[in-house]
Amino acid sequence: MLPPSLAHLVESLQILPGVGEKTAQRLAFFLIRGETRKREQIGNALLTIGDKLRKCQKCFHFCESNFCDLCERKDRDPSLLCIVEESLDLLAVEKTGAFSGYYHVLGGALAPLDGISVSDLHLAELFLRLKKEDVSEIFLATNPSLEGESTAMLISRKCMTDFPKIKITRLASGIPCGGDVEYTDELTLRRAVENRRDF
Amino acid sequence: MLPPSLAHLVESLQILPGVGEKTAQRLAFFLIRGETRKREQIGNALLTIGDKLRKCQKCFHFCESNFCDLCERKDRDPSLLCIVEESLDLLAVEKTGAFSGYYHVLGGALAPLDGISVSDLHLAELFLRLKKEDVSEIFLATNPSLEGESTAMLISRKCMTDFPKIKITRLASGIPCGGDVEYTDELTLRRAVENRRDF
Repeated sequence: MLPPSLAHLVESLQILPGVGEKTAQRLAFFLIRGETRKREQIGNALLTIGDKLRKCQKCFHFCESNFCDLCERKDRDPSLLCIVEESLDLLAVEKTGAFSGYYHVLGGALAPLDGISVSDLHLAELFLRLKKEDVSEIFLATNPSLEGESTAMLISRKCMTDFPKIKITRLASGIPCGGDVEYTDELTLRRAVENRRDF
Repeated sequence: MLPPSLAHLVESLQILPGVGEKTAQRLAFFLIRGETRKREQIGNALLTIGDKLRKCQKCFHFCESNFCDLCERKDRDPSLLCIVEESLDLLAVEKTGAFSGYYHVLGGALAPLDGISVSDLHLAELFLRLKKEDVSEIFLATNPSLEGESTAMLISRKCMTDFPKIKITRLASGIPCGGDVEYTDELTLRRAVENRRDF
């Protein structure tokens, strides 16, 4: 019932995560009813980004030259290194404004069942950085999930043997702000109790 | 912190309805991590659709030639005409398989506060169709909202005076299937009671 070009757009939009047929239809109709300029803006952005984007040779965050803006900055604390799974995690940590060091993006977390092993992550590059740079603290900001925890564990073990002087820290786990003790899951609450802080 | 091309993509994706900064970031990262081919498929679909798409000269559904596939079909019942607000509504009604006639897409509903008046809808074209075509029933499938109801009201009044022989029907209102009497809003429940049917 849809003309081919529209059906093709609807089908294409279903490539997006979390977008099924209904949402794709809604998006497509929104786009064809709206201004051509807006449609072209998204279209062109999608077509050109592949040629422009690469990964920072130091931290593996996305960038358009050899090094990313963050690695190029001189006003950060070079003794602090935050290790995250993905670029999106870097953005989230950076947005808090509570971290003043540099970053290292692993490109994922260990997940043997999904076929993601040590060699798929930027781990060798991390240990090379630790050898070359003067880092005094690595802050493990991988997700508090099974995969994130095992990745953090692996890094911390390797560091303890190879770089015994480096302090290793981990993201705090606990009840989210605005959360509810009663409705917090057991594991999170247990962590929040174990890691209780002075008040 | 994002390279310009990536920031531009994130910003562009925020044009989409219901997509804020976070979702746009998630979509953008999904797209740049995925295959170039997929990105290009969406990009090209967006860039080319504007030139291909037009509206059916009869029912105002989207199509690529003068008339849409549905209007071109000869196996439908020409005495039945379903009136919907948008093309998406046409698709939804058609998907039920319970309607065998033709359609007329108004292009919206009367909403004086939003500046949508009689002249903004394909109403003149509708009455012209009723004059020319041999319609015995018009089925008003506008939304059961304030705007949809007033649009249905306007059409039915005009029809009653100008085309007194045409039967006018309206989408049934009531409790959705799988719904709950207790949690149904008052107005819907009242309609469901008033329009109770033989069992």
